[in-house]
Amino acid sequence: MSQDANCIFCKIIKGEIPSFKIYEDDKTFAFMDINPGNPGHCLAIPKFHAETIFTTPDEWVMATAATVRRVARAVQAALSPYGMNIVQANGPGAKQSVMHLHVHILPRVQDDNLLLNWGLAPGNMDQIKALAEKIKAHLPRD
Amino acid sequence: MSQDANCIFCKIIKGEIPSFKIYEDDKTFAFMDINPGNPGHCLAIPKFHAETIFTTPDEWVMATAATVRRVARAVQAALSPYGMNIVQANGPGAKQSVMHLHVHILPRVQDDNLLLNWGLAPGNMDQIKALAEKIKAHLPRD
Repeated sequence: MSQDANCIFCKIIKGEIPSFKIYEDDKTFAFMDINPGNPGHCLAIPKFHAETIFTTPDEWVMATAATVRRVARAVQAALSPYGMNIVQANGPGAKQSVMHLHVHILPRVQDDNLLLNWGLAPGNMDQIKALAEKIKAHLPRD
Repeated sequence: MSQDANCIFCKIIKGEIPSFKIYEDDKTFAFMDINPGNPGHCLAIPKFHAETIFTTPDEWVMATAATVRRVARAVQAALSPYGMNIVQANGPGAKQSVMHLHVHILPRVQDDNLLLNWGLAPGNMDQIKALAEKIKAHLPRD
């Protein structure tokens, strides 16, 4: 499948860069966003390198959608957030920061006043790790 | 398939409420948002009534994802916006306004400073109709 040797998300899929992985199957990978808009913020990506929804083939977009649903249900079960958005950005004009299609599973907090897109600020790694464990408890193991 | 007699989006699918339809297939329906966050704002929905991504079966989530991609490519081809977000809201806490799963295909305008979610304000119907025609020119006909 298509991969890019210089892409940070391709490196995360291959384990060359560490991540808080919460789910993986043959076509997709999901992990914690380390710049969370809110606690419990996850990302789902296809194991196919393409920048946007325009250039990612249907097969991979659909597999990613199923993983988004699976992860969203796990976040809901684990954290019962105030609300939840699914967000995907295409191009710098939409503040896409990594040029590999990725879908945000973003729990909402009351009065968080998030912008589309929210600013990027590093989260607390211990908190992210603990949230990953809670969410993973509601997902199939490897 | 599951439908709700009181749901505005189920009524739009059935043609009981008019819409600026841009695409339809056996499982999905896409139309213009009449409260656009920006010009060219479209919605894609499954022909299956469920409120959220948590309760919409995989089959319908995946079909909707393929339609989202198809519509996003058409909007990109028709309007070449500054950027494009795909957004889906679950629950009142995420400002979900219609309780039938729907996915926003939302073109970005430079410095639009959109909130997640943006405020709802009625658009200009003539402009929406003209944009629908431009976008439909890049989509299969019925």
